[in-house]
Amino acid sequence: MRILGVDPGLQATGYGVIEFNGSTAKLLEAGTIKPKKTDLIQNKVHAIHKNLEEIILEYRPEVMVLEKIYTHHQYLTTAGILGHARGVICLLCAQHGIKLVEQSVTRLRKAVLGKGRGSKFQMQGMVAHALKIDGNKLTLDASDALALALGYTQISTRQL
Amino acid sequence: MRILGVDPGLQATGYGVIEFNGSTAKLLEAGTIKPKKTDLIQNKVHAIHKNLEEIILEYRPEVMVLEKIYTHHQYLTTAGILGHARGVICLLCAQHGIKLVEQSVTRLRKAVLGKGRGSKFQMQGMVAHALKIDGNKLTLDASDALALALGYTQISTRQL
Repeated sequence: MRILGVDPGLQATGYGVIEFNGSTAKLLEAGTIKPKKTDLIQNKVHAIHKNLEEIILEYRPEVMVLEKIYTHHQYLTTAGILGHARGVICLLCAQHGIKLVEQSVTRLRKAVLGKGRGSKFQMQGMVAHALKIDGNKLTLDASDALALALGYTQISTRQL
Repeated sequence: MRILGVDPGLQATGYGVIEFNGSTAKLLEAGTIKPKKTDLIQNKVHAIHKNLEEIILEYRPEVMVLEKIYTHHQYLTTAGILGHARGVICLLCAQHGIKLVEQSVTRLRKAVLGKGRGSKFQMQGMVAHALKIDGNKLTLDASDALALALGYTQISTRQL
C-alpha cells in the first residue's frame, strides 16, 4: 500500500510517500512545495496543486493522509488562508480517486511517539528511525508529512 | 469584456457571466452549483471546480470577481471551510489565465445600490434591472454573483 502524507500550508506544503507492506514502511519520496512568498494566491494554490499532482502521477498512492484543520481564535486568518491550500489538495483526491484521511496531530503523535507530546524535532528523529534514513536530510515539513503517513500505518494495523 | 462573478460556498456557489461593452452589461449565464450536502469535502470541491470550469471553457471570461473573505469570531469554522471552496476557485484563475479580483461586499453595495446597505433582495432587484431580466428567475446566490460582476464594471468605469 502506498500512502501520501501531506502537511498543508500556502507558504510550505510538506509531502512524503511511503510504501507499507503490512509490517515495515519504506520511503519513496519526500519534499516541500514552497510557492514564492510574493506570488498571488491563485499562483500559490496552482503551484501546490501542480507539484503534488506530479507526485501523485509518479507514485499513485491509494491513500492521502492530510493534517486535520484546527481553528483557534489566534489562528483566525490562518484557518481561512490554510483552507485554500487544503481545498486544492482535497480536490486532487477526487480527481485521482485517492482515499482521503484526515488525521489529528494528537492522535498522530500518540501513534508515532507514544503517549505525550513530542516536538517537531523528536518527530523528525522518529520518522528517520522508522524509515531507516538520515533525519538531517528531511525538512521539518516533510518529516511531519511522513509522520502523518506512518501514523496511518500504525492506526491501520493497531486499530488505535 | 466578459466578467465572471462568483459567490463562493461549499453548500452553494453562485456564479454569473456578463458581457460589458463599456456602457451596458448583458447577462450571458447565471446559476448555482450545489454539491450534495452529504458528500465528502473532496467531492464538494470537485463539483465546484468541475462545474465552474465548464462555464469558463464555454464563456472564456477575462476577469473573475470573487467575494472577499471575512473572518469574524462567530464565523470561525466557516472561514476555514469556505477557504476550501475559494482555493479551487482561485486555482481555476491560474489554470485558465483569468485575472482574479477580490471584491468586498461593502464596496460592491456602494457601487450597485449607492451609499447605504441593501438587502440580498434589493440587490436581486437592482441586478435584474441593470441586466433587463426578470429577477424572479435568479437565485439569490446567482444574483449576488452577478452583482459582483456588475460592481466591477462600475468600479472599472467610475474608478471608485
